[in-house]
Amino acid sequence: MGQVCFGVDVGGTTVKLGLFSMDGSLHSKWEITTRKIENGKYILEDVADSIGKKIIELKLKMEDIIGVGVGIPGPVKRDGVVLRCVNLGWGVFNVEEELGKLTGLKIKAANDANIAALGEMWQGGGKGYRNIVLITLGTGVGGGIIVDGNILAGSNGAAGEIGHSFVNKEEKDSCSCGNSGCLEQYASATGIVKETHRLLNKTEEPSVLRDLEEITAKDIFDCAKAGDHLANISVENLCYYLGVELTHVACVLDPEAFVLGGGVSKAGSILTDLVKKYYEEHVMFALKGKEFKLATLGNDAGIYGGAKLILDTL
Amino acid sequence: MGQVCFGVDVGGTTVKLGLFSMDGSLHSKWEITTRKIENGKYILEDVADSIGKKIIELKLKMEDIIGVGVGIPGPVKRDGVVLRCVNLGWGVFNVEEELGKLTGLKIKAANDANIAALGEMWQGGGKGYRNIVLITLGTGVGGGIIVDGNILAGSNGAAGEIGHSFVNKEEKDSCSCGNSGCLEQYASATGIVKETHRLLNKTEEPSVLRDLEEITAKDIFDCAKAGDHLANISVENLCYYLGVELTHVACVLDPEAFVLGGGVSKAGSILTDLVKKYYEEHVMFALKGKEFKLATLGNDAGIYGGAKLILDTL
Repeated sequence: MGQVCFGVDVGGTTVKLGLFSMDGSLHSKWEITTRKIENGKYILEDVADSIGKKIIELKLKMEDIIGVGVGIPGPVKRDGVVLRCVNLGWGVFNVEEELGKLTGLKIKAANDANIAALGEMWQGGGKGYRNIVLITLGTGVGGGIIVDGNILAGSNGAAGEIGHSFVNKEEKDSCSCGNSGCLEQYASATGIVKETHRLLNKTEEPSVLRDLEEITAKDIFDCAKAGDHLANISVENLCYYLGVELTHVACVLDPEAFVLGGGVSKAGSILTDLVKKYYEEHVMFALKGKEFKLATLGNDAGIYGGAKLILDTL
Repeated sequence: MGQVCFGVDVGGTTVKLGLFSMDGSLHSKWEITTRKIENGKYILEDVADSIGKKIIELKLKMEDIIGVGVGIPGPVKRDGVVLRCVNLGWGVFNVEEELGKLTGLKIKAANDANIAALGEMWQGGGKGYRNIVLITLGTGVGGGIIVDGNILAGSNGAAGEIGHSFVNKEEKDSCSCGNSGCLEQYASATGIVKETHRLLNKTEEPSVLRDLEEITAKDIFDCAKAGDHLANISVENLCYYLGVELTHVACVLDPEAFVLGGGVSKAGSILTDLVKKYYEEHVMFALKGKEFKLATLGNDAGIYGGAKLILDTL
């Protein structure tokens, strides 16, 4: 199968691994459990073992393996040093050196949100672009930035933290970060559910949502698509906050495209269309006409990005 | 004097030129008039002539000249192509190739706001940092972004246009860009004057500003420093809008420092202190503690940045 590389996405529960050809096609993917005991000291050993087994299984030659690109759920410095990953129990050490010793392969590591953005640019919703912003709308709101084909990590690895941009000075409730009025409080799955409950409590207006025992973000989007007025107000609210925030992002970066991922993005074109609408209404003329795409790689974005990261070292 | 390079800043009225040593010290600087007749066709010839005269005057050897870095008041693509400079009357052409033919020297060109940021990073208020955002508070509000020591230009050269970030949905008056509620409407010299007049009209509160025939941004800052309550409200208003906008910028870029330049920045530490105050109040924990510096190169930032740009090609 010619030259290959591995993409690895270390998460708090599982580690995802993928074997890729040079052209970006995924040969096989699999998962292992993230062993977090004893401050996560076995995680990299398990990754190395799993890669070793795959090498034997497929009779890969070491000289055909470009290396391993790894996404880490925390800040990673340019030299491969991770600065505490609370999720994994890790302290400060050089993950590239460690995994390199364990595998005998070349390793390149980066933050998982940034790697996902790289993956989406390479083979996902951002394919064909070299300057994208990936916004992940899940339990929280995350971001990954690609400039000229490369990850923009920021001076302390906090670039792309747009979930905690301050968007509403009227907000009284606290965000998970401790501030109030963060984008995440309106544009995440949990945010839209909370805002919808607020709306339901504020009016007497009938809505299908009132009949549901528990409301999810998916319910709200489904009801909005089915024409429920109140659900539509909620969806518009999310898209307003996100669309306006992306005008700020555009004024800073001038990207080619925004790629929306995470669970909320399964809502599809209703999301991209409305976010684009509010974006266009508020952005300066020189930044109009950006593309709004849906992410397409789902949970595989990280392994794709890992593969691209190591291929970019060639 | 060993190896040298030229930094050139092409403006709508004058072209500024500087001769630099490799270590960043300015050997001499001078200006020529920007001849805008006939769609600015003589501008580059004049620049080449002026450089040629300096070479003869100082008996410089061609092999000792690294090249010329040029700032242009408009978008410049990576390959040196300028995409219409309305100010100069220029259409679309490769400024690096043209000036290279005229001088026989290596040329590198970039947008003037970006070059100013590069200059401030190299020898000005951002010295010692590799990731800065320069905000120029003049008639308008401009921005230049440096990431890992390099200019971030954006996919269409519009990165750093934070003057046109949308910051106030209550605003009814139009910005020069056609939108309403842009940062520039509050944080520029013209913006603070306009907001101050609004404030004076809205209240009966006494203020020294009422005795002035014409109010300038400098007057407002001077009165604020002298304890005038109304002037202080105006200054706080400017710093609030700018400080909050910089929290958005930080969530995108995670820079090391913000550098404030332009006429308004002559107000000094009252400006940086208050902008920092509002920034710290609204930014997420991971992005607290950024440095807020004053630009120090004034109108020379462009020639410094030009010199750095060409030195970076070595």
